[in-house]
Amino acid sequence: MASRVSSKPVALILLAAGQGSRMNSDLPKVLHQIGSAPLAVHALRAATALEPEKTVVVTGHGADKVEATLSKHYDDLIFARQTEQNGTAHAVDQARSALEGFAGDAVVLYGDTPFVSGDTLQHMADARKTADVVVLGFKADKPGRYGRLITNGASLEKIVEAKDATAEQLAVKLCNSGVIMCQSQTLFELISEVQNNNATGEFYLTDIVGLARERGLTAVAVTCDEAETLGINTREELAAAERTFQTRMRAEAMETGVSLADPDSTFFAYDTVLGRDAMIGPNVVFGPDVTVESGAEIKAFCHLEGCHVSQGSVVGPFARLRPGAELEEGAKVGNFVEIKNATLAEGAKVNHLSYVGDAHVGAGANIGAGTITCNYDGVFKHRTTIGAGAFIGSNTLLIAPVDVGADAMTGSGTVVTEDVPDGDLALSRVRQTNKAGFARKLMQMLRAKKMKKDA
Amino acid sequence: MASRVSSKPVALILLAAGQGSRMNSDLPKVLHQIGSAPLAVHALRAATALEPEKTVVVTGHGADKVEATLSKHYDDLIFARQTEQNGTAHAVDQARSALEGFAGDAVVLYGDTPFVSGDTLQHMADARKTADVVVLGFKADKPGRYGRLITNGASLEKIVEAKDATAEQLAVKLCNSGVIMCQSQTLFELISEVQNNNATGEFYLTDIVGLARERGLTAVAVTCDEAETLGINTREELAAAERTFQTRMRAEAMETGVSLADPDSTFFAYDTVLGRDAMIGPNVVFGPDVTVESGAEIKAFCHLEGCHVSQGSVVGPFARLRPGAELEEGAKVGNFVEIKNATLAEGAKVNHLSYVGDAHVGAGANIGAGTITCNYDGVFKHRTTIGAGAFIGSNTLLIAPVDVGADAMTGSGTVVTEDVPDGDLALSRVRQTNKAGFARKLMQMLRAKKMKKDA
Amino acid sequence: MASRVSSKPVALILLAAGQGSRMNSDLPKVLHQIGSAPLAVHALRAATALEPEKTVVVTGHGADKVEATLSKHYDDLIFARQTEQNGTAHAVDQARSALEGFAGDAVVLYGDTPFVSGDTLQHMADARKTADVVVLGFKADKPGRYGRLITNGASLEKIVEAKDATAEQLAVKLCNSGVIMCQSQTLFELISEVQNNNATGEFYLTDIVGLARERGLTAVAVTCDEAETLGINTREELAAAERTFQTRMRAEAMETGVSLADPDSTFFAYDTVLGRDAMIGPNVVFGPDVTVESGAEIKAFCHLEGCHVSQGSVVGPFARLRPGAELEEGAKVGNFVEIKNATLAEGAKVNHLSYVGDAHVGAGANIGAGTITCNYDGVFKHRTTIGAGAFIGSNTLLIAPVDVGADAMTGSGTVVTEDVPDGDLALSRVRQTNKAGFARKLMQMLRAKKMKKDA
Repeated sequence: MASRVSSKPVALILLAAGQGSRMNSDLPKVLHQIGSAPLAVHALRAATALEPEKTVVVTGHGADKVEATLSKHYDDLIFARQTEQNGTAHAVDQARSALEGFAGDAVVLYGDTPFVSGDTLQHMADARKTADVVVLGFKADKPGRYGRLITNGASLEKIVEAKDATAEQLAVKLCNSGVIMCQSQTLFELISEVQNNNATGEFYLTDIVGLARERGLTAVAVTCDEAETLGINTREELAAAERTFQTRMRAEAMETGVSLADPDSTFFAYDTVLGRDAMIGPNVVFGPDVTVESGAEIKAFCHLEGCHVSQGSVVGPFARLRPGAELEEGAKVGNFVEIKNATLAEGAKVNHLSYVGDAHVGAGANIGAGTITCNYDGVFKHRTTIGAGAFIGSNTLLIAPVDVGADAMTGSGTVVTEDVPDGDLALSRVRQTNKAGFARKLMQMLRAKKMKKDA
Repeated sequence: MASRVSSKPVALILLAAGQGSRMNSDLPKVLHQIGSAPLAVHALRAATALEPEKTVVVTGHGADKVEATLSKHYDDLIFARQTEQNGTAHAVDQARSALEGFAGDAVVLYGDTPFVSGDTLQHMADARKTADVVVLGFKADKPGRYGRLITNGASLEKIVEAKDATAEQLAVKLCNSGVIMCQSQTLFELISEVQNNNATGEFYLTDIVGLARERGLTAVAVTCDEAETLGINTREELAAAERTFQTRMRAEAMETGVSLADPDSTFFAYDTVLGRDAMIGPNVVFGPDVTVESGAEIKAFCHLEGCHVSQGSVVGPFARLRPGAELEEGAKVGNFVEIKNATLAEGAKVNHLSYVGDAHVGAGANIGAGTITCNYDGVFKHRTTIGAGAFIGSNTLLIAPVDVGADAMTGSGTVVTEDVPDGDLALSRVRQTNKAGFARKLMQMLRAKKMKKDA
Repeated sequence: MASRVSSKPVALILLAAGQGSRMNSDLPKVLHQIGSAPLAVHALRAATALEPEKTVVVTGHGADKVEATLSKHYDDLIFARQTEQNGTAHAVDQARSALEGFAGDAVVLYGDTPFVSGDTLQHMADARKTADVVVLGFKADKPGRYGRLITNGASLEKIVEAKDATAEQLAVKLCNSGVIMCQSQTLFELISEVQNNNATGEFYLTDIVGLARERGLTAVAVTCDEAETLGINTREELAAAERTFQTRMRAEAMETGVSLADPDSTFFAYDTVLGRDAMIGPNVVFGPDVTVESGAEIKAFCHLEGCHVSQGSVVGPFARLRPGAELEEGAKVGNFVEIKNATLAEGAKVNHLSYVGDAHVGAGANIGAGTITCNYDGVFKHRTTIGAGAFIGSNTLLIAPVDVGADAMTGSGTVVTEDVPDGDLALSRVRQTNKAGFARKLMQMLRAKKMKKDA
C-alpha cells in the first residue's frame, strides 16, 4: 500500500444511502459482502492510505443496519442521514455540518464501489497539489452510459452525462468514476450552486466541475483501470466481483510464497494473512481475521475464522477453528474437531471428533477422541484448563469450570466434575459385566418380533 | 414456466430404450444424472407444461432399472418395451397399443435430451393449431451430421439425414431435434408407412414428415436454441451438461435474490428451492427435495437432502441434513451434526458433534455436544421426543423410545433409558475418583517398557 | 503407457539441483507437488516406460530433503551431489562416476518438467536406433527465449540459445526441451569437451549436439507437444500445471467410465485408481494410494488416502479414510467418521461420528454412532477386533487391546475394557435417576444469578 506523502489532512465522504433495488434483497446494497466484508468496508479500507482525519458516511436506506455494521469495523465514523434521495450532490451535502470548519480536503467515495485502490487515491492526492478539483476517470472501450470527462489539454473542463452529451462528446472514452477530491469548504460551496433543472430533478455532484471552472478554479482528471471503478448493482455483478477479488488474493498469496494446492477452491476473507510456505489444501474457507504463520499446514475441508495458527501447526482435514482459537507452535487439530476461544499450547494435540471451547490446553497435552469441554450450563460459560503433558482419555467430559493438572490423566469415558491434581489419574468408571448369551437371545427376540409384525 | 393454453389433450412418448454405449457404463444412459435427477426425468419435467394426460415411456436396455427409477418420480407412467432396436419409428411404434383410441396429440421426446424447455413445447402446441405435423428444429452454425429440415416458405417439406443430403441440402442450417408433435392416430398411421430400405435397415421417425406431405397434410418447424436440443452421449457431454445446468440454476437463484457467497461451489439439485435473501456459503451441496426459506443461512461445507429449513435458521458449517429434517424458525444446527427424520422446533439448537434421528426436539431446547439418539436396536427404529426448553447435557445417550419432558435436563454423559418428567434432572453418573500419582507412574511404566522394547 | 520395445539398457539422469528461487519457498522446487506427488516424481514416473536400469538424481539445493523425499518413492536411486551450480552440462557431469562403465543409453531429464510422457520417451528410444544423439524438441508458436534446434533436413546440426541466435535462427520455431538421449559414455565424452566461454560462464548441455556433429556423429530431433515440455518456475505456473494435470485425470476417469458428479471439484492424486461406474460426488479429495473399485460410491466431501474401497461400498458424505483403511464389499462408512489402519469386512457399517483405528471389524457388524477405538495409551498403539455380526452400541469405548466376539453386543455408552465372548452382551452402565424438579430449580438459580450479575 502506498505510504502517505501528502501532509494535507483528508476527510472521507462515503455515499452509502442507496437501496440497490436490483440486488433484490432486504439487505442494503453496501452491506453485501465480498471476501467476508461489506462492500462499503472495502471502499473505506483502500482509503486508509490517505490517513483520513474524519470519515462521514451518508446513510439512507437501511441506515440503522448500515451504521451498526460499519461501526463494527471502524470506531470513529460520523454518520449523516439522507432522508430523501435527491441525487449525489444532495447526498454529499448531508456531510456539510459534520465537516463544518474542516480545512483539509474532502474525498467523495461510494459504498458500492469496492475496488478503488489506495495507490489511485494517493495519485489523486498528489494531483491535488497543483489542481483545485481532482476527478477520478478511466478509459473505457465501451463508454456507453457513463458520464464523459471533457478535457482541454491537461485541464478538465466539465463532466457531461451520457444522455446530455453531443455526438462529439459521446466519442470521448475518458469516463467519470464519480470519485472527486477537493478542498472541503470549496466542495460545499460548489454543491450549493448545483441546480436540479434536468430530466430527473436530482442534484448531480458531477456539475461541480463545470461550476469550479466557471469560478476560475483548476480541475484535472487522474485515471485508473476501469476494473477499479466497478460498481455493484446486481447479484451477478457481486458474484463477478467476488471472483475478481478471490483471483487477486490467490495470486498475491502465491507471489508471497504460499502453497495453495488448489487456488480455485481456496476462499479468502478481505484480511486473511498467510505466511510464506504456509500449505493450504483444497477446499479451505477463511472467514475474517485469520493468520496462518509461515510453515503451518491447513489441510483440505477446513473452516477458519478469528484464529491464529502458528508455525509447524497442522489443522484438518475437516477442522473448524472459531474465533479465539490460538494454536501455538506445533499444535495439531485433526478431523471433526471444533476449537473455540481456546489456546492449544506448543505441541498440544486434539486429533479426532472433539469440542474444545473456552479452554487452555497445556504444552504437549494429548486430548483423546470424543473429548468435550462442557462449557455451558444453560446460562453461563465456564473455562477448562488442562496442564502441560496431560493425557485426556477418549470421550472425557470436562464439566467446566475445572482444572486438570500437568501430567495428569483421565480414563476413557471419565466425567470430570472436580479438579485433577498434577500427575493424578481421574476415573469415573463402572466395571464392565458380560451377560452370557444375552446378545444372541435379544437379537432372536427382536427378529422374531419383526417376523410377527411383518407377517 | 408457460401456463397451458391449448385445450387439446396431449400424450407424451418418451424414447428411453437406448444403451448409450459411449457412456461406458452399466447404468442405462437415460438414468445418468444431472442436478441429482436422471436425464429422462429432466425431459419429462419440462413436458409438464403441456399437462399430459398420458405418458408412455419406451424402454429397452436396462428396462427394469429404467422403469423402477422413473416410477419413483412419476406415478402414472405407461411403459412399453422395445425388445429389439429397429430405429426411432420402430421405438415410437411400441407406444401404439398404449395410445389406442387416444384422440389428442402425441409428442415424441428423448430420454437423453434433458434441456428442451416447457416454453418451447408450448410453442409447438401453439403451432399445432394451424399445422398437422410440428417438428422442433434449431439453427446450427455447424450443422455437421444433424438431419436437415427442408422447408418451402413456411411449410416443412421433409427431413433429410445428413448422409443422404445433397450439397444444396447440406448448406441448410435448420436442423432436426427429433422432437415431433402431431395428432396421435395420424402419428401411428404415418409410422406404419415408414420403410427401412436404407443403409442401416432401421425405421426412421424423420420419414413421417415427407409421408405427411405426400398425404397433403401440413407441416411446420418451430425453432429453439441449439442448447435446448443437446443430446448426451458421453460422460464428457454429461459433465458439460451438468455445468450448463448448474450455471443456469445459480443465475436463476441470484436473480430471485438468493445470496450465493461462491456460486461456482454451490451445487443444486433439479428441484432445489431457495428463498430471497437465503444466504448460502461456499461448498454447499443440495441433494433432491430441499427448501431453504427466505432469510435462512446455510454456511460452508453443508450437505442437504429431503429437508426444510425455515426462516432465521442457521445450518453449518459441516452439517448434514438428511431426509425428513425439518428446521422450524430460528433452529440451529452446528458443526459435525447429522439430523435425520427429525423436527427441531422453533429456536432449538444442536450445535456440535451430534446425531439426532427419528426425533422431535421441542422449541428452545438445547442439545449438548456429542448427544446421540440411539434410535436403532439392530432390528427396529424408535423415536425420541425432547420437550420444549429442555437442556440435554453433553454426550447424553437417548435410548429410544424415550421421552424427555419440557424444561427437563440431563447431566453430561447420562444414558437415558427411562422417560424424564417435565422439569426433572436425569443423571446416571459415577462419582469421580482421583488416583494420586497414578498418571505419572503409568506413563513412567509405559515409557520404560518402550525403551526396553526399542533397545 | 507404451510398452518397452527397445532392448538397449537405459539409465536416467534427473537434474534436481536447482533452487527455484522464483517459487519463493524453502522447499526445493522439484519437491513442490502436483497431484500429491513431487514434480521430480512425475518426471521419473513417465520414464518407467523405458525400464531404466539405473537412475541417477543430481541434487544440490536442499539435497538432503530431495534425497529423503524421492527415496520414499523409489528404492534404488543413486544420488550425485552438485555442490556448485555451473550449468546443465556440469550438472550432468556429476552423474559420471555413477555411470562409469555403463554401456547403455543415458537420458537427461529435469526435475521441474513433470509432463514429458512415456510415449514421447519411447519415441526418442526408437529414434536412437538410427541416430547417435536424440534431442526432444517442440514447435512453439511463440519461441521467445527458448533455445532453437537448427536442422538440416532430418539431421539436427546444433542447438542455439535464443540470446546467441541470428535473426534467421530466431525465426526457427522448433525449440529445445533440454531432454537428450545418447549412449552413456559418448554423453560424458562430449560433456568433457563443453566450454564455458559464454556470457554466464556456465557449461551448457546443449553444446553437445554441435560437438557430436563435429565428430561426425548423427543427431536428430524428436518432437512432442509444447505442453509436455512445460517447466515450472513460479507458483502460478505450478497452479496452472496442477489444473492441467487435474483436467487430464478427470477426462481419463470419465473415458474409463467413472461417474464424476462434478469433475471440477474432484481432486486426484497422481496414482488414483477408480473403477468403471465408481460414483464420485462433488468435493472429493484423493490423496496418494487410493483405489476405489467398480461400482463403489464416494459421496460429497470425502477425503481419502492410502485406502481401498471395494465394490458396493458406500463412503460419506464427510468421511475420512486414512492409510490402511480397507473396505470390503458392501461396507459402509458414514458422516463424520474416521477410519485408519482398519479393515471393515463385508457389509460392516460405521455410519456416524466414530473413530475406528488399528482394528478389524467383522462381516455385517454394526458400529453405533460415537464409537471410539481407544487405540493409544500415550506410548503404544493397540488393536481392536470386532467379530462378525456384532452390534456395538452408540458411544461405546473400546479400550484396546480388546476383542469383541461374533454376534456380541455392547450397550450404549459401554466402556469395554475386557474381551466380550461370542454372543454376550457387555454393559458398564449406571442406573438412571431422575431428580424431581431439580432441572427447573437449577435453571431458576442460574437465571437469578445472571440477573444479579447483570444488574
